Amino acid sequence: MIRQPDETHDPRLRSWIESANAPGHPFPIQNLPFGIYRRAGSRERPRVGVAIGDRIVDVIACRRAAYLSGVAEACDAPNLNRLLAAGRDAWTTLRAELSQILRDGSYRAREMRDREGELFVPAADAELLLPAEIGDYTDFYASVHHATNVGSMFRPDNPLLPNYKHVPIGYHGRASSVVPSGTPVRRPNGQTKAPTADGPSFGPSRMLDYELEVGAFVGPGNRLGEAIPITEAEDHLFGIVLVNDWSARDIQGWEYQPLGPFLAKNFATTVSPWVVTMDALAPFRVPATARPAGDPAPLPYLTDPDSAERGGIALSLEVWLRTPAMRERGEAEALLSRGSFAAMYWTLGQMLAHHASNGCNLRPGDLIASGTVSGPERNERGCLLELTWRGAEPLTLPGGETRRFLEDGDEVILRGWCEREGRVRIGMGECRGAVSGER
Amino acid sequence: MIRQPDETHDPRLRSWIESANAPGHPFPIQNLPFGIYRRAGSRERPRVGVAIGDRIVDVIACRRAAYLSGVAEACDAPNLNRLLAAGRDAWTTLRAELSQILRDGSYRAREMRDREGELFVPAADAELLLPAEIGDYTDFYASVHHATNVGSMFRPDNPLLPNYKHVPIGYHGRASSVVPSGTPVRRPNGQTKAPTADGPSFGPSRMLDYELEVGAFVGPGNRLGEAIPITEAEDHLFGIVLVNDWSARDIQGWEYQPLGPFLAKNFATTVSPWVVTMDALAPFRVPATARPAGDPAPLPYLTDPDSAERGGIALSLEVWLRTPAMRERGEAEALLSRGSFAAMYWTLGQMLAHHASNGCNLRPGDLIASGTVSGPERNERGCLLELTWRGAEPLTLPGGETRRFLEDGDEVILRGWCEREGRVRIGMGECRGAVSGER
Repeated sequence: MIRQPDETHDPRLRSWIESANAPGHPFPIQNLPFGIYRRAGSRERPRVGVAIGDRIVDVIACRRAAYLSGVAEACDAPNLNRLLAAGRDAWTTLRAELSQILRDGSYRAREMRDREGELFVPAADAELLLPAEIGDYTDFYASVHHATNVGSMFRPDNPLLPNYKHVPIGYHGRASSVVPSGTPVRRPNGQTKAPTADGPSFGPSRMLDYELEVGAFVGPGNRLGEAIPITEAEDHLFGIVLVNDWSARDIQGWEYQPLGPFLAKNFATTVSPWVVTMDALAPFRVPATARPAGDPAPLPYLTDPDSAERGGIALSLEVWLRTPAMRERGEAEALLSRGSFAAMYWTLGQMLAHHASNGCNLRPGDLIASGTVSGPERNERGCLLELTWRGAEPLTLPGGETRRFLEDGDEVILRGWCEREGRVRIGMGECRGAVSGER
Repeated sequence: MIRQPDETHDPRLRSWIESANAPGHPFPIQNLPFGIYRRAGSRERPRVGVAIGDRIVDVIACRRAAYLSGVAEACDAPNLNRLLAAGRDAWTTLRAELSQILRDGSYRAREMRDREGELFVPAADAELLLPAEIGDYTDFYASVHHATNVGSMFRPDNPLLPNYKHVPIGYHGRASSVVPSGTPVRRPNGQTKAPTADGPSFGPSRMLDYELEVGAFVGPGNRLGEAIPITEAEDHLFGIVLVNDWSARDIQGWEYQPLGPFLAKNFATTVSPWVVTMDALAPFRVPATARPAGDPAPLPYLTDPDSAERGGIALSLEVWLRTPAMRERGEAEALLSRGSFAAMYWTLGQMLAHHASNGCNLRPGDLIASGTVSGPERNERGCLLELTWRGAEPLTLPGGETRRFLEDGDEVILRGWCEREGRVRIGMGECRGAVSGER
């Protein structure tokens, strides 16, 4: 079953960590996202932290000080994998305990404030690392708008393939090159072939792109040979991050037949550092709306009334770009597009149930990404391939610069948040990456 | 540079472990493959072992007893990953030391024989596990015969795509479902659509297939953003195993457009337990011959004179099948096909250099498989899809049974060995898996 809001989402809750109560702050007490950090510049063992306001809660320090119960022991690790394996009841319990000790009025507040240096780290002093050791990274293709746009460029007669509305299309990505927000992304070399050229050549990609995606970290998972029923799919979803699945479109065009994307994708995938839990998202669940009337019903193994009613997530998304020229002029980044994760054709639960339907074993720490999140409108296209229609319609940026694809020094920033009448807005934490020059 | 034979390959070498000297034994002293084992039925920590005759050398026990130098410390782990990270010099040194202490005439022989229970385990008492913790598994498509056969079934007008002779085509497979030889393989469920059906249905695959492949375990690897030059590719190849990349052809046919194989492949991949090192293979290196005159030359990043001269491996392969009926009648398995790994279009070195050419980071323990090994002849087709031409030409087995695809209870056995005039034959160890019924 999909989570229902509980008292940890109560909009009246405030934290005794004052910065968390600032209107619009991404990390109020209703959020409590998990991540991995260490003091910036140190080589200390990475630790599990929870973001609240401008502070990071050192979960294990709070456990050692007996502010949290034994359930927090799963955070005694340099990544979230143990916590992911611990399962949904543990996640919910730990969230409830964190909410208790951090809220205004907690009888622990005064004591904890006195021990602040031991229990918290200022976010400004922390380096944020990958949330989990990712065993396998899978990328889906769950936006029908993205699939239709890309299809129209490459197969104008046949933009949406006949399997699309039946199969949550996905493929395996590369786990080794998933990097945390802020990691520079080198422009990849690769084979490309211009349509007019006799043969291919090897060199820096000239059609480097970003992709706005949402990724989910997998919890306990399943044994090889056993499926996960759609009704249990949410028990295996811990939380979500923003994902930029960088793509080299010219390499992709030449290599992808017949086995799909490979070197065009596996040079880097950036994820935002804070995992916003499915528990935190409970107030923002919405019907899975993108399947219009008249479309074929999903097969039974992908059908669940609960999921149809609340399988979507009302998550607003934005892509921003800051070019070297903007940086030189001291300007902030420019908005490229907006998007809504509620507009996906397939839900995260359907992706997960489909993934395990053949007995493929999912493991704690696996990352499942949604594929590019594009909406029906022009300003809702989640990558430059779509925004510039394969480079044919360059974007004009503030200051008069234009872009077909990314240039060296360009920084891409993904942002996301959930808001809803009567609920406290929660944010995703940024997913940033700048293109460094070719090798 | 590709390894040259040295005195560890001397055909006159014999071991004081008598079983290793039996003519045709897969594990003579010239082989010394590495694997991971524990006593069958125990839950003890897996250990690094080296196969010789009917014994497994407990490498760490030999190190503790000071029969091996500090280089063997990299084997103090429950998988080969530390040894893989240690690099080529360490591998070669350790091989030389093992060869020294195990050969007939070693001054250690008597003492070691007295301590046999401490230093060795009978292979018959061991359970063989996965050789490495596999971070990422990549599957290539390096047989031009396989690509052409499959292409002719699905695109009769256009069997071999224009990129094939330029790009070592590959895709990401699933690391979590790579299993050691002997693990039963459950028939997967999945979506399929008959050409005449209105829509898809979900159920057990009816076109379950094996694929005969060869896989290489990656050594030190590269940092994200840095390539591996083709001239250094062999420094990152530790050794090879046989790989059965099970495939559900009916699921594949419906799902694979546009992003490639996914659930059709990720339910199981079986690997043989003993990693035959590139060091052991030195006497069996042959020219990369499959690129006929007139074909385009590889681009410079895939070109190396040394590799062209000795990039191939003279590895003979066989696929055997044992059906439940054969088992009932007490019959042995039947030969389905033969193959030669020397007939591949792309070498392992080219696959590795290509994989890292965009800066994708390869890590110790990554598995790179070749794709189905098929030759030009009918009896050299490495999967049932090709052997039965998609089921149109069923195979007749001894006893009159026929097969289009695999049936429940069918056991597939892959075998491989290298032999050459004047050299001692070395074997690969078997890769076995039986199909268990649907769920």
